[in-house]
Amino acid sequence: MIERHIRDVPDFPKPGIVFKDITPLLQDPKAFQRSIEGMAGRVADFEIDAVCGIESRGFIFGAALAAHLGKSFIPIRKPGKLPWRTATESYELEYGTDTIEVHTDAVEEGQRVLMVDDLLATGGTMEAGVKLIRKIGGDPVACVFLIELDFLKGRNKLRGIPVHALARYDQ
Amino acid sequence: MIERHIRDVPDFPKPGIVFKDITPLLQDPKAFQRSIEGMAGRVADFEIDAVCGIESRGFIFGAALAAHLGKSFIPIRKPGKLPWRTATESYELEYGTDTIEVHTDAVEEGQRVLMVDDLLATGGTMEAGVKLIRKIGGDPVACVFLIELDFLKGRNKLRGIPVHALARYDQ
Repeated sequence: MIERHIRDVPDFPKPGIVFKDITPLLQDPKAFQRSIEGMAGRVADFEIDAVCGIESRGFIFGAALAAHLGKSFIPIRKPGKLPWRTATESYELEYGTDTIEVHTDAVEEGQRVLMVDDLLATGGTMEAGVKLIRKIGGDPVACVFLIELDFLKGRNKLRGIPVHALARYDQ
Repeated sequence: MIERHIRDVPDFPKPGIVFKDITPLLQDPKAFQRSIEGMAGRVADFEIDAVCGIESRGFIFGAALAAHLGKSFIPIRKPGKLPWRTATESYELEYGTDTIEVHTDAVEEGQRVLMVDDLLATGGTMEAGVKLIRKIGGDPVACVFLIELDFLKGRNKLRGIPVHALARYDQ
Protein backbone atom coordinates (compact mmCIF):
# COMPACT_ATOMS: atom_id res chain seq x y z
CA MET A 1 0.00 0.00 0.00
CA ILE A 2 2.81 2.36 0.93
CA GLU A 3 4.87 0.92 -1.93
CA ARG A 4 2.79 2.44 -4.70
CA HIS A 5 3.65 5.92 -3.39
CA ILE A 6 7.39 5.27 -3.50
CA ARG A 7 9.12 6.21 -6.74
CA ASP A 8 12.20 4.32 -7.92
CA VAL A 9 14.80 6.71 -9.31
CA PRO A 10 17.60 4.80 -11.08
CA ASP A 11 21.23 5.91 -10.83
CA PHE A 12 20.76 8.29 -7.89
CA PRO A 13 22.84 9.42 -6.09
CA LYS A 14 25.25 7.48 -8.32
CA PRO A 15 25.21 4.94 -11.17
CA GLY A 16 23.83 1.53 -10.23
CA ILE A 17 21.87 2.71 -7.19
CA VAL A 18 18.06 2.74 -7.34
CA PHE A 19 16.90 5.50 -5.00
CA LYS A 20 13.59 5.17 -3.14
CA ASP A 21 11.95 8.57 -3.53
CA ILE A 22 9.41 9.22 -0.79
CA THR A 23 8.16 12.60 -2.07
CA PRO A 24 5.13 11.11 -3.92
CA LEU A 25 4.02 9.62 -0.60
CA LEU A 26 4.37 12.98 1.18
CA GLN A 27 2.39 14.58 -1.63
CA ASP A 28 -0.59 12.27 -1.09
CA PRO A 29 -2.26 13.44 2.15
CA LYS A 30 -3.94 10.09 2.84
CA ALA A 31 -0.79 8.07 2.18
CA PHE A 32 1.25 10.40 4.41
CA GLN A 33 -1.28 10.16 7.23
CA ARG A 34 -1.58 6.41 6.88
CA SER A 35 2.19 6.09 7.13
CA ILE A 36 2.26 8.12 10.37
CA GLU A 37 -0.64 6.09 11.76
CA GLY A 38 1.05 2.90 10.57
CA MET A 39 4.25 3.77 12.43
CA ALA A 40 2.24 4.66 15.53
CA GLY A 41 0.44 1.33 15.34
CA ARG A 42 3.66 -0.67 15.09
CA VAL A 43 5.10 0.88 18.26
CA ALA A 44 1.92 1.20 20.33
CA ASP A 45 3.17 -1.32 22.92
CA PHE A 46 6.49 0.32 23.72
CA GLU A 47 5.34 3.05 26.14
CA ILE A 48 7.68 5.61 24.67
CA ASP A 49 8.48 9.03 26.16
CA ALA A 50 10.12 10.62 23.15
CA VAL A 51 10.62 10.26 19.40
CA CYS A 52 14.07 10.79 17.91
CA GLY A 53 14.51 11.68 14.22
CA ILE A 54 17.74 11.80 12.26
CA GLU A 55 18.41 14.78 9.94
CA SER A 56 16.95 15.41 7.41
CA ARG A 57 14.27 13.01 6.17
CA GLY A 58 14.01 11.49 9.63
CA PHE A 59 12.73 14.89 10.77
CA ILE A 60 9.72 14.56 8.46
CA PHE A 61 8.45 11.29 9.88
CA GLY A 62 9.88 11.70 13.37
CA ALA A 63 8.34 15.11 14.03
CA ALA A 64 4.97 14.21 12.54
CA LEU A 65 4.93 11.01 14.60
CA ALA A 66 5.95 12.80 17.81
CA ALA A 67 3.17 15.37 17.34
CA HIS A 68 0.70 12.59 16.50
CA LEU A 69 1.63 10.66 19.65
CA GLY A 70 1.92 13.75 21.86
CA LYS A 71 5.56 12.99 22.72
CA SER A 72 8.83 14.93 22.77
CA PHE A 73 10.84 15.23 19.58
CA ILE A 74 14.62 14.87 19.71
CA PRO A 75 16.55 15.97 16.61
CA ILE A 76 19.85 14.25 15.81
CA ARG A 77 21.79 16.51 13.48
CA LYS A 78 24.87 16.77 11.32
CA PRO A 79 27.92 18.31 13.01
CA GLY A 80 27.92 22.01 13.88
CA LYS A 81 24.17 22.54 13.59
CA LEU A 82 23.09 22.19 17.22
CA PRO A 83 23.92 25.28 19.29
CA TRP A 84 24.13 23.79 22.80
CA ARG A 85 26.50 21.19 24.30
CA THR A 86 26.50 18.05 22.17
CA ALA A 87 27.45 14.40 22.25
CA THR A 88 28.82 13.05 18.97
CA GLU A 89 29.12 9.67 17.30
CA SER A 90 30.93 8.74 14.10
CA TYR A 91 30.23 5.85 11.77
CA GLU A 92 31.77 4.35 8.68
CA LEU A 93 30.57 4.99 5.16
CA GLU A 94 31.61 3.16 2.02
CA TYR A 95 34.39 5.73 1.72
CA GLY A 96 35.34 7.64 4.87
CA THR A 97 33.26 8.40 7.96
CA ASP A 98 30.29 10.55 8.93
CA THR A 99 29.35 12.13 12.26
CA ILE A 100 26.06 12.96 13.96
CA GLU A 101 25.29 14.96 17.10
CA VAL A 102 22.63 15.41 19.74
CA HIS A 103 22.25 17.87 22.61
CA THR A 104 23.49 16.36 25.87
CA ASP A 105 20.29 17.50 27.62
CA ALA A 106 17.93 16.16 24.95
CA VAL A 107 16.60 13.33 27.13
CA GLU A 108 16.02 12.76 30.82
CA GLU A 109 17.81 9.78 32.35
CA GLY A 110 16.09 6.53 31.42
CA GLN A 111 13.56 8.02 29.01
CA ARG A 112 12.22 5.52 26.50
CA VAL A 113 13.05 6.72 23.02
CA LEU A 114 11.59 5.62 19.69
CA MET A 115 14.15 5.99 16.89
CA VAL A 116 12.73 7.06 13.51
CA ASP A 117 14.13 7.40 10.01
CA ASP A 118 12.68 7.11 6.55
CA LEU A 119 14.97 4.37 5.28
CA LEU A 120 16.93 1.45 6.77
CA ALA A 121 19.74 0.60 4.38
CA THR A 122 23.07 -0.61 5.80
CA GLY A 123 22.06 0.57 9.27
CA GLY A 124 25.19 2.60 9.99
CA THR A 125 23.38 5.87 10.63
CA MET A 126 20.76 4.34 12.91
CA GLU A 127 23.37 2.31 14.80
CA ALA A 128 25.18 5.59 15.53
CA GLY A 129 21.88 7.22 16.52
CA VAL A 130 21.17 4.43 19.00
CA LYS A 131 24.64 4.81 20.55
CA LEU A 132 24.16 8.57 20.77
CA ILE A 133 20.86 8.30 22.65
CA ARG A 134 22.44 5.80 25.08
CA LYS A 135 25.41 8.12 25.56
CA ILE A 136 23.13 10.89 26.84
CA GLY A 137 21.17 8.57 29.16
CA GLY A 138 18.19 7.60 27.01
CA ASP A 139 16.88 4.10 26.32
CA PRO A 140 16.27 3.39 22.62
CA VAL A 141 13.41 0.89 22.89
CA ALA A 142 12.47 0.47 19.22
CA CYS A 143 13.29 1.64 15.70
CA VAL A 144 10.71 2.38 13.04
CA PHE A 145 11.31 3.09 9.37
CA LEU A 146 9.08 3.83 6.43
CA ILE A 147 11.23 1.61 4.18
CA GLU A 148 13.65 -1.24 4.80
CA LEU A 149 16.04 -2.53 2.16
CA ASP A 150 16.22 -6.11 3.47
CA PHE A 151 19.08 -7.14 1.20
CA LEU A 152 21.44 -4.66 2.89
CA LYS A 153 20.89 -6.39 6.25
CA GLY A 154 20.79 -3.17 8.30
CA ARG A 155 18.90 -5.00 11.04
CA ASN A 156 22.09 -6.85 11.94
CA LYS A 157 23.52 -3.58 13.24
CA LEU A 158 20.51 -3.03 15.50
CA ARG A 159 20.47 -6.31 17.41
CA GLY A 160 18.57 -6.23 20.68
CA ILE A 161 16.18 -3.52 19.51
CA PRO A 162 12.85 -4.31 17.82
CA VAL A 163 12.89 -2.95 14.26
CA HIS A 164 9.73 -2.15 12.31
CA ALA A 165 9.32 -0.99 8.73
CA LEU A 166 6.13 -0.26 6.79
CA ALA A 167 7.55 -1.33 3.43
CA ARG A 168 10.30 -3.90 2.86
CA TYR A 169 12.20 -4.52 -0.34
CA ASP A 170 14.25 -7.67 -0.93
CA GLN A 171 16.06 -6.36 -3.98
CA MET B 1 4.06 31.13 26.17
CA ILE B 2 6.18 29.70 23.35
CA GLU B 3 9.00 32.04 24.37
CA ARG B 4 9.79 30.29 27.62
CA HIS B 5 10.65 27.15 25.69
CA ILE B 6 13.14 28.95 23.44
CA ARG B 7 16.73 28.98 24.68
CA ASP B 8 19.04 31.86 23.85
CA VAL B 9 22.52 30.59 22.97
CA PRO B 10 25.00 33.48 22.73
CA ASP B 11 27.75 33.54 20.10
CA PHE B 12 26.29 30.82 17.88
CA PRO B 13 26.96 30.20 15.05
CA LYS B 14 29.47 33.05 15.42
CA PRO B 15 30.47 35.76 17.93
CA GLY B 16 27.81 38.42 18.49
CA ILE B 17 24.85 36.33 17.29
CA VAL B 18 22.29 35.13 19.86
CA PHE B 19 20.85 31.89 18.49
CA LYS B 20 17.24 30.94 19.22
CA ASP B 21 17.41 27.27 20.18
CA ILE B 22 14.07 25.53 19.63
CA THR B 23 15.08 22.11 21.00
CA PRO B 24 13.66 22.79 24.51
CA LEU B 25 10.28 23.44 22.88
CA LEU B 26 10.46 20.19 20.91
CA GLN B 27 11.36 18.38 24.11
CA ASP B 28 8.20 19.55 25.87
CA PRO B 29 5.34 17.56 24.33
CA LYS B 30 2.67 20.10 25.29
CA ALA B 31 4.65 23.07 24.02
CA PHE B 32 5.41 21.25 20.75
CA GLN B 33 1.76 20.34 20.24
CA ARG B 34 0.58 23.83 21.14
CA SER B 35 2.96 25.29 18.60
CA ILE B 36 1.58 23.01 15.84
CA GLU B 37 -1.99 23.84 16.87
CA GLY B 38 -1.04 27.53 17.08
CA MET B 39 0.29 27.48 13.53
CA ALA B 40 -2.83 25.65 12.34
CA GLY B 41 -5.01 28.26 14.03
CA ARG B 42 -3.22 31.17 12.39
CA VAL B 43 -3.74 29.77 8.91
CA ALA B 44 -7.20 28.25 9.32
CA ASP B 45 -8.78 30.70 6.85
CA PHE B 46 -6.45 30.11 3.92
CA GLU B 47 -7.94 26.88 2.52
CA ILE B 48 -4.57 25.38 1.80
CA ASP B 49 -3.88 22.24 -0.23
CA ALA B 50 -0.30 21.62 0.81
CA VAL B 51 2.33 22.56 3.39
CA CYS B 52 5.88 23.32 2.26
CA GLY B 53 8.81 23.06 4.69
CA ILE B 54 12.38 24.19 4.09
CA GLU B 55 15.25 21.86 5.06
CA SER B 56 16.08 21.11 7.83
CA ARG B 57 14.23 22.69 10.78
CA GLY B 58 11.34 23.63 8.50
CA PHE B 59 10.78 19.89 8.06
CA ILE B 60 10.05 19.52 11.77
CA PHE B 61 7.22 22.04 11.91
CA GLY B 62 6.11 21.68 8.29
CA ALA B 63 5.69 17.91 8.34
CA ALA B 64 4.00 17.87 11.76
CA LEU B 65 1.65 20.63 10.60
CA ALA B 66 0.87 18.89 7.28
CA ALA B 67 0.04 15.65 9.12
CA HIS B 68 -2.04 17.59 11.67
CA LEU B 69 -4.02 19.33 8.90
CA GLY B 70 -4.26 16.25 6.67
CA LYS B 71 -2.49 18.00 3.78
CA SER B 72 0.40 17.20 1.43
CA PHE B 73 3.94 17.91 2.53
CA ILE B 74 6.40 19.44 0.06
CA PRO B 75 10.07 19.39 1.05
CA ILE B 76 12.36 22.13 -0.24
CA ARG B 77 15.92 20.87 0.03
CA LYS B 78 19.54 21.84 -0.33
CA PRO B 79 21.09 21.14 -3.76
CA GLY B 80 21.71 17.56 -4.85
CA LYS B 81 19.42 15.91 -2.29
CA LEU B 82 16.23 15.48 -4.32
CA PRO B 83 16.46 12.60 -6.79
CA TRP B 84 13.91 13.65 -9.43
CA ARG B 85 13.81 16.67 -11.76
CA THR B 86 14.15 19.88 -9.77
CA ALA B 87 13.63 23.61 -10.00
CA THR B 88 16.27 25.69 -8.23
CA GLU B 89 16.47 29.16 -6.75
CA SER B 90 19.52 30.99 -5.38
CA TYR B 91 19.60 33.77 -2.82
CA GLU B 92 22.18 36.02 -1.29
CA LEU B 93 23.80 35.45 2.06
CA GLU B 94 25.95 37.89 4.00
CA TYR B 95 28.90 36.39 2.12
CA GLY B 96 28.14 34.51 -1.08
CA THR B 97 24.95 32.77 -2.17
CA ASP B 98 22.92 29.71 -1.25
CA THR B 99 20.64 27.53 -3.37
CA ILE B 100 17.51 25.50 -2.65
CA GLU B 101 15.58 23.00 -4.77
CA VAL B 102 12.18 21.43 -5.13
CA HIS B 103 10.84 18.67 -7.38
CA THR B 104 9.15 20.10 -10.47
CA ASP B 105 6.14 17.81 -9.90
CA ALA B 106 5.78 18.66 -6.19
CA VAL B 107 2.55 20.63 -6.66
CA GLU B 108 -0.36 20.56 -9.03
CA GLU B 109 -1.05 23.75 -11.01
CA GLY B 110 -2.68 26.36 -8.79
CA GLN B 111 -2.44 24.44 -5.51
CA ARG B 112 -2.57 26.71 -2.47
CA VAL B 113 0.62 26.22 -0.49
CA LEU B 114 1.38 27.20 3.10
CA MET B 115 5.08 27.99 3.54
CA VAL B 116 6.60 26.93 6.89
CA ASP B 117 9.91 27.46 8.61
CA ASP B 118 11.03 27.70 12.22
CA LEU B 119 12.57 31.16 12.02
CA LEU B 120 12.08 34.33 10.00
CA ALA B 121 15.33 36.30 10.10
CA THR B 122 16.38 38.32 7.04
CA GLY B 123 13.82 36.47 4.92
CA GLY B 124 16.19 35.47 2.13
CA THR B 125 15.53 31.74 2.41
CA MET B 126 11.75 32.09 2.53
CA GLU B 127 11.72 34.59 -0.32
CA ALA B 128 13.57 32.00 -2.42
CA GLY B 129 11.13 29.31 -1.25
CA VAL B 130 8.16 31.41 -2.35
CA LYS B 131 9.73 31.96 -5.79
CA LEU B 132 10.43 28.25 -6.09
CA ILE B 133 6.83 27.26 -5.38
CA ARG B 134 5.59 29.81 -7.95
CA LYS B 135 8.11 28.50 -10.48
CA ILE B 136 6.57 25.02 -10.34
CA GLY B 137 2.98 26.31 -10.57
CA GLY B 138 1.95 26.54 -6.91
CA ASP B 139 0.36 29.51 -5.14
CA PRO B 140 2.09 30.41 -1.85
CA VAL B 141 -0.87 31.85 0.06
CA ALA B 142 0.69 32.39 3.49
CA CYS B 143 3.88 31.96 5.51
CA VAL B 144 4.00 30.76 9.10
CA PHE B 145 7.00 30.72 11.41
CA LEU B 146 7.54 29.67 14.99
CA ILE B 147 9.78 32.69 15.59
CA GLU B 148 10.19 36.05 13.90
CA LEU B 149 13.14 38.34 14.53
CA ASP B 150 11.31 41.62 13.85
CA PHE B 151 14.45 43.75 13.88
CA LEU B 152 15.80 41.96 10.79
CA LYS B 153 12.71 43.02 8.79
CA GLY B 154 12.37 39.71 6.93
CA ARG B 155 8.70 40.51 6.26
CA ASN B 156 9.78 43.14 3.77
CA LYS B 157 10.98 40.39 1.47
CA LEU B 158 7.59 38.63 1.61
CA ARG B 159 5.31 41.50 0.57
CA GLY B 160 1.92 40.44 -0.72
CA ILE B 161 1.85 37.26 1.36
CA PRO B 162 0.34 37.17 4.87
CA VAL B 163 3.07 36.32 7.40
CA HIS B 164 2.35 34.81 10.80
CA ALA B 165 4.72 34.00 13.67
CA LEU B 166 3.95 32.53 17.07
CA ALA B 167 6.76 34.40 18.86
CA ARG B 168 8.23 37.74 17.83
CA TYR B 169 11.44 39.29 19.14
CA ASP B 170 12.24 42.98 18.65
CA GLN B 171 15.89 42.67 19.63
